[in-house]
Amino acid sequence: MSWNQKHLLDIEGLSAQELTAVLDTAREFKAVGERDIKKTPALQGKTVVNFFVEPSTRTRVSFELSAKRLSADIINFSADASSFQKGESLKDTARNLEALNADIIIIRHKAPGAPHFLSRFLDSHVINAGDGAHEHPTQALLDVFTIREKKKAINNLNVTILGDILYSRVARSNIWALRKLGANVTLCGPSTLVPRIFEETGCRVTYDIEEALEGADVINLLRIQHERQRKTMFPSIGEYSRLFGLNRSRLALTKPDAIIMHPGPINRGVEIESEIADGDRAVILEQVTNGIAVRMAALYLVSGCQNKNI
Amino acid sequence: MSWNQKHLLDIEGLSAQELTAVLDTAREFKAVGERDIKKTPALQGKTVVNFFVEPSTRTRVSFELSAKRLSADIINFSADASSFQKGESLKDTARNLEALNADIIIIRHKAPGAPHFLSRFLDSHVINAGDGAHEHPTQALLDVFTIREKKKAINNLNVTILGDILYSRVARSNIWALRKLGANVTLCGPSTLVPRIFEETGCRVTYDIEEALEGADVINLLRIQHERQRKTMFPSIGEYSRLFGLNRSRLALTKPDAIIMHPGPINRGVEIESEIADGDRAVILEQVTNGIAVRMAALYLVSGCQNKNI
Amino acid sequence: MSWNQKHLLDIEGLSAQELTAVLDTAREFKAVGERDIKKTPALQGKTVVNFFVEPSTRTRVSFELSAKRLSADIINFSADASSFQKGESLKDTARNLEALNADIIIIRHKAPGAPHFLSRFLDSHVINAGDGAHEHPTQALLDVFTIREKKKAINNLNVTILGDILYSRVARSNIWALRKLGANVTLCGPSTLVPRIFEETGCRVTYDIEEALEGADVINLLRIQHERQRKTMFPSIGEYSRLFGLNRSRLALTKPDAIIMHPGPINRGVEIESEIADGDRAVILEQVTNGIAVRMAALYLVSGCQNKNI
Repeated sequence: MSWNQKHLLDIEGLSAQELTAVLDTAREFKAVGERDIKKTPALQGKTVVNFFVEPSTRTRVSFELSAKRLSADIINFSADASSFQKGESLKDTARNLEALNADIIIIRHKAPGAPHFLSRFLDSHVINAGDGAHEHPTQALLDVFTIREKKKAINNLNVTILGDILYSRVARSNIWALRKLGANVTLCGPSTLVPRIFEETGCRVTYDIEEALEGADVINLLRIQHERQRKTMFPSIGEYSRLFGLNRSRLALTKPDAIIMHPGPINRGVEIESEIADGDRAVILEQVTNGIAVRMAALYLVSGCQNKNI
Repeated sequence: MSWNQKHLLDIEGLSAQELTAVLDTAREFKAVGERDIKKTPALQGKTVVNFFVEPSTRTRVSFELSAKRLSADIINFSADASSFQKGESLKDTARNLEALNADIIIIRHKAPGAPHFLSRFLDSHVINAGDGAHEHPTQALLDVFTIREKKKAINNLNVTILGDILYSRVARSNIWALRKLGANVTLCGPSTLVPRIFEETGCRVTYDIEEALEGADVINLLRIQHERQRKTMFPSIGEYSRLFGLNRSRLALTKPDAIIMHPGPINRGVEIESEIADGDRAVILEQVTNGIAVRMAALYLVSGCQNKNI
Repeated sequence: MSWNQKHLLDIEGLSAQELTAVLDTAREFKAVGERDIKKTPALQGKTVVNFFVEPSTRTRVSFELSAKRLSADIINFSADASSFQKGESLKDTARNLEALNADIIIIRHKAPGAPHFLSRFLDSHVINAGDGAHEHPTQALLDVFTIREKKKAINNLNVTILGDILYSRVARSNIWALRKLGANVTLCGPSTLVPRIFEETGCRVTYDIEEALEGADVINLLRIQHERQRKTMFPSIGEYSRLFGLNRSRLALTKPDAIIMHPGPINRGVEIESEIADGDRAVILEQVTNGIAVRMAALYLVSGCQNKNI
């Protein structure tokens, strides 16, 4: 086991060995979710705070359930109706949460770097549940976990990430994880959303959807996030779908056993044709299931409980 | 034990034997709520999702507590701030919840048939916590549980349901349960809210409050639901109260030991005179207590845990 | 152990012996929060309801975690989206919560006396989590707990409470607790917010900040609560800070080992200079930690579980 991090702040700062440690641990926890009694006492008596300043029901629920399956006590603390309304700073709120004897603080925040900021003054372990357009490490971990489960290894796989790369923390975290584990990554989407500068991360950038899909082992479709795009970065949803949506003829360009991923919630008929989303190549719901296993592993590893039985 | 259902979708589809199985199981769980330690490990390690698309604090809380007393892990997932805002379909959201390894999904939805729709594609067990004006099976079960506890048997009892029958899922589920268990059911209220077609369910329909109450063993008062009635179906609250409200002189028409029920929250001075609501004939708060026992039974039975000790 | 109260409604009604019983019990529970497994089975199988009619995330979370560390089942029931919207009375809602077999109901309400009102008709134990500008007993208990921990004893200590006394339930509860335990209490702030009538509680009232701080062992700063003050009771925030804010030169007037307290959330640069809030004289975050211990003690004592092991 090669995990020595106090926090899980981003994928950029992890080694391939550490990534693999999370994936291996998650595999053990996945088995817990398949038991009749989906529960392990590994984090019994630990206090976990779900500190969600930016709303996200599904990520919050995934962490909440992960903590419960580990027998931890978890508290949801959202920005609505909280002290923020009374003008308290992020630092003061975080220190107040820590003062509840919180072992782990999971933070979702719209500001990039918010989890790193917390990690500088907190003794609690910090897990990044998404910080603005920066990173979403547990999403990337569940994505590579799913890929590894389906394809046995990540090294040398052709992975195409399609859509809004520029504004996507999911894309950023995936790029780091996939590159560290040796995958060939292709980024594709409207040129306004996939700037050439991403080539510096070792990825191929192309605006040609056919080129992007040809020979792919994995296609990871990003959600068109209306809420995060201030200016219209592309003409229309219809045009996006026509130019970059995944349909059957485009799917035919990939390897016959290519898998289709999406962080959800999917926009049927926009990023993906409905039939494909429901087809046997899509692993979108398995990603959700794996999210619990990966988040259990993250909670378990950062808390330094490796020596306890799973 | 004659329970063989995978889901609890409605009362209409249950046999008298199945209804009785729930009531008998609930009686055992009621004893748990009276213990010093109100807890049983029957559903330990099971995951229950409270999926409330239509808000309902009291039903949600009743299910939440029922699941906790069974030692299950329960997650609240409401429509507010959820993926619905991002345009995800009910089907996709439900499949995402199931992908969390949910054993049981409890759904409250404004659309009649929403739980049945879910049951067609989910492997998880589905419990209907109220679907529009269609059914509210656990409410009917707690009602008949309360009646049976007070009156020993349901067969041949005279039960009068008073108020807004047309828009009431409580009335529909109660009618099914009471008729299957052999009660004589009288429906009464303003003619706009109690259409004659209900006679086809084997009930007596009358618009004469005195006739409705005469000789009744049980009176079940429905709530005047302003929020569900688009058009004004009766002249005014004052007139409703004057024509159909339960007062002392009307109560005198029933059997001397008749009990008074209400699903809550009550409108004092509208459906019921305040003094009667607080009197010893009212079993309104016992219904709330029995709601936990009945919901524990429902969670326990659908999950197929009958063989475990309660 | 001299605790014989069924409820915890206010500090006014408690004897010095009862206050000391809570503090002694809280000391034992503080040790639980420092264990690796922060959990005791003392209230296992008990049902606690967090009934928050007025929103307060941090007090709610503190009680929630306290209940979980005691292994109780806790349900959050807030006024939003609840039956209140349907016109149900406070009495009916409380009785409905009790009918869930609630052992303890924790109530936060904007109306002074709401917890006392509930205690008159409920069999459940009632804990006041703040009732309007009246009392906030667990806050005062955590304050005196923190003082006792730092100063060994309360008797004869000089405690200065600074700020908005008139509208503060924290001040009222602190005055009762401190006076009963023998402290010398000085109240200071703008004359509009510190009426002379408080002298009847045995406190010294002064409008001279230097006089108030001279020789103080403890300074308890109250939050300027914009939300509770209908009319402007003082010219401006800037003027308040200039006249009554705690800065370094004022701090020098206190005893060299004086501690600085604040119920939070703090307004940096208003009641307190930022550097002082972060300095080693401030015990503001320890108050938060102690809040859990004190609330565990309150839940434990009112429920009559004294005979169980902590």
